[in-house]
Amino acid sequence: MTETDWGALAQDWLDRLAACSEPGPGVTRLPFTPEHRAALSVLTELMQQAGLSVSLDAAGTLIGRQDGQEGAPALLFGSHQDSVREGGAYDGIMGVVLPVLALMKLREDGVRLPFAVEILAFADEEGVRFPTALMGPRALAGTFDMAALELCDREGISLRRAMEDFGLDPDALPQLRRAAAQVLAWVEIHLEQGPVLEAAGQQIGIVTGICGIERHMVTLTGKAAHAGTVPMHLRRDALAGAAELALTAEALARDTDNLLATVGALELRPGVVNAIPGEVTLTLEIRAPDDDLRQKAGVALTEAAQEIATRRGLGVEIARTYAQSATPCSPLVMEQLMQAAGAGNHAPVPRMASGATHDTSAMAGLCPVGMLFTACRGGVSHHPDEYVPAAAMSSGVLALERFLSQFQASDAITR
Amino acid sequence: MTETDWGALAQDWLDRLAACSEPGPGVTRLPFTPEHRAALSVLTELMQQAGLSVSLDAAGTLIGRQDGQEGAPALLFGSHQDSVREGGAYDGIMGVVLPVLALMKLREDGVRLPFAVEILAFADEEGVRFPTALMGPRALAGTFDMAALELCDREGISLRRAMEDFGLDPDALPQLRRAAAQVLAWVEIHLEQGPVLEAAGQQIGIVTGICGIERHMVTLTGKAAHAGTVPMHLRRDALAGAAELALTAEALARDTDNLLATVGALELRPGVVNAIPGEVTLTLEIRAPDDDLRQKAGVALTEAAQEIATRRGLGVEIARTYAQSATPCSPLVMEQLMQAAGAGNHAPVPRMASGATHDTSAMAGLCPVGMLFTACRGGVSHHPDEYVPAAAMSSGVLALERFLSQFQASDAITR
Repeated sequence: MTETDWGALAQDWLDRLAACSEPGPGVTRLPFTPEHRAALSVLTELMQQAGLSVSLDAAGTLIGRQDGQEGAPALLFGSHQDSVREGGAYDGIMGVVLPVLALMKLREDGVRLPFAVEILAFADEEGVRFPTALMGPRALAGTFDMAALELCDREGISLRRAMEDFGLDPDALPQLRRAAAQVLAWVEIHLEQGPVLEAAGQQIGIVTGICGIERHMVTLTGKAAHAGTVPMHLRRDALAGAAELALTAEALARDTDNLLATVGALELRPGVVNAIPGEVTLTLEIRAPDDDLRQKAGVALTEAAQEIATRRGLGVEIARTYAQSATPCSPLVMEQLMQAAGAGNHAPVPRMASGATHDTSAMAGLCPVGMLFTACRGGVSHHPDEYVPAAAMSSGVLALERFLSQFQASDAITR
Repeated sequence: MTETDWGALAQDWLDRLAACSEPGPGVTRLPFTPEHRAALSVLTELMQQAGLSVSLDAAGTLIGRQDGQEGAPALLFGSHQDSVREGGAYDGIMGVVLPVLALMKLREDGVRLPFAVEILAFADEEGVRFPTALMGPRALAGTFDMAALELCDREGISLRRAMEDFGLDPDALPQLRRAAAQVLAWVEIHLEQGPVLEAAGQQIGIVTGICGIERHMVTLTGKAAHAGTVPMHLRRDALAGAAELALTAEALARDTDNLLATVGALELRPGVVNAIPGEVTLTLEIRAPDDDLRQKAGVALTEAAQEIATRRGLGVEIARTYAQSATPCSPLVMEQLMQAAGAGNHAPVPRMASGATHDTSAMAGLCPVGMLFTACRGGVSHHPDEYVPAAAMSSGVLALERFLSQFQASDAITR
């Protein structure tokens, strides 16, 4: 019997899943749609091939379960089935396929685990169809806000109605809450969506935590005027102030480990070739795996904006429009993942924070969490060109399989 | 007999002219409209009070003429009757009223001039209604392009049709060309539209020339990416490059006498809070009264953009989309204006370039030109709040009156 090529097998299943898409470039698979239904059918077939018993919970989460010893708690794996519009074939869904293949390999190797294992395919992480997301993991953690059921998609269909039309019972969501004692940990494998692993020539990385995020809306107000009639020293140019702030944010983040700062949107008024800009509104986003570091950066950049405005005779308003705390991964889960991923590796496995939010963020409300990243080509994600090399997926399957089998011997994990 | 308050008298006429407007805030008086007709009626009354003979030429320019000795050439004054939408009561039209009042004062004082004088009220300098402007002075200079007659306003009415409906004969435009020998010089008085004179506590300034202008469209191309997944040192952020360019342009202009540089418009893509900007398009406008200085600045900023792009791994495209040469004022006219404006002044009269284009730009194709600026409140123009203090208008009338009477004794002006 030849050795299974787990990367190639994963690619086969992901190709079938990528076909569960609206027409158009890449993959468009929104929650509670015919495409979602088609993907669940493929995943069910995969899970059943791995010997799992398959069910759909009231949140639309597909669950493939393998029991352990009677009454034993479960180790949870998974990610989300949905994509962005015209997204890729790996984001989310790969994190469902790879742990199923890891269980398949354990089964091939005749390994029996003392604990239960569940692989979860959540309905909606991207939040593309409804202005909410993460319902599946939040239901498990008991943090889902039932008011979100009344939010509507752009056709005016409420989340509640979409779920009911999909055959689900939204009123049963509160009953999905898991008892912490029945859950050992949650592990998600996801493509990096960034260029770090590829640049380092690595297939797999260990996620140390998910960055906290804060967003600020900054408005700088100067004086709009004719670009020909106001000498430079009498100008109050809002765009020049905004340019200084953008470069200050960039410099602070460049000079600070684990800090990201981005001016992603900027609008100016009047915005014509022959007028000095009188007003600029911009967004400033700060991310860091350490909340204290992030908050200090927010304060420093707020002060910088005020200093720039004062020096330039501009008005400034800064409003923090969003804040989300960091989700540190469990040190004990990380340690186990490190051992599993590092086996047979010559170089140490890279450790890195996740700048993007994942289902793991919500699962941290229930149990200790861990994450693995796989490399992806060019750091591209949320795009039809998204691609994870088969070798990286193979490394992922083998790391998860070792993690599962080593975890068998470990009961050191606690909350 | 009490001394006439020329500033107050000017304000009275300008109030009457401001009423020749579309409804709404400020003044909206577009060419070849009922409002234009109403303004010509008021101006005709004013010119007739000053003893001028009034006619309307084929370009819609109202001409008030006072003959000199038989066959003597004419000294020309004036500006434009039209406004921007919701503009002010002074821009353009004040430059028609003040020289008429200057002639009125000379008449009161019993001064007879050996040369002819004409006061011109051009139909269209702002170019708001049609995508062309300066037809009146261009017709006099013989530089009007007859093809512009076919350009349409936003109702689809061609310039030709609008002029015919106004009772004009567009086909007679070529006959308006003046013989250079019949024109001594052109002088325009206009509000500064900037804050320099007010800041210096001066009523009147001498314009040394009208700035040349060049405009560049700059596109910087980096790589759009998730703001959470790309470390700072691996980013190719088009907005950060654009910010550097905007500050470089500002610094160069601040450090260079008589140079203005403005980034007036800027758009970025994708332009969302959580994405690194992948592409920025901005406008860079450079003005200077010296064409060589302006062109050198254009080259320097093009090179700066290329250096920034190279250092940051960005693509860059720079296209010069517009260029207009500077119009220097005639040194001899300037000298005469300086003597006229400086009489009784304790401080020297400020000399300054005009960053904005005026009818004078086109009149320079016909004869030696000069300009006076009056102070305006807060540098505001093209706005209902536009305001020129009566004292500044009075200074303008008196300066023009002295210029006219001193010019009487001078025949030193040559082309």
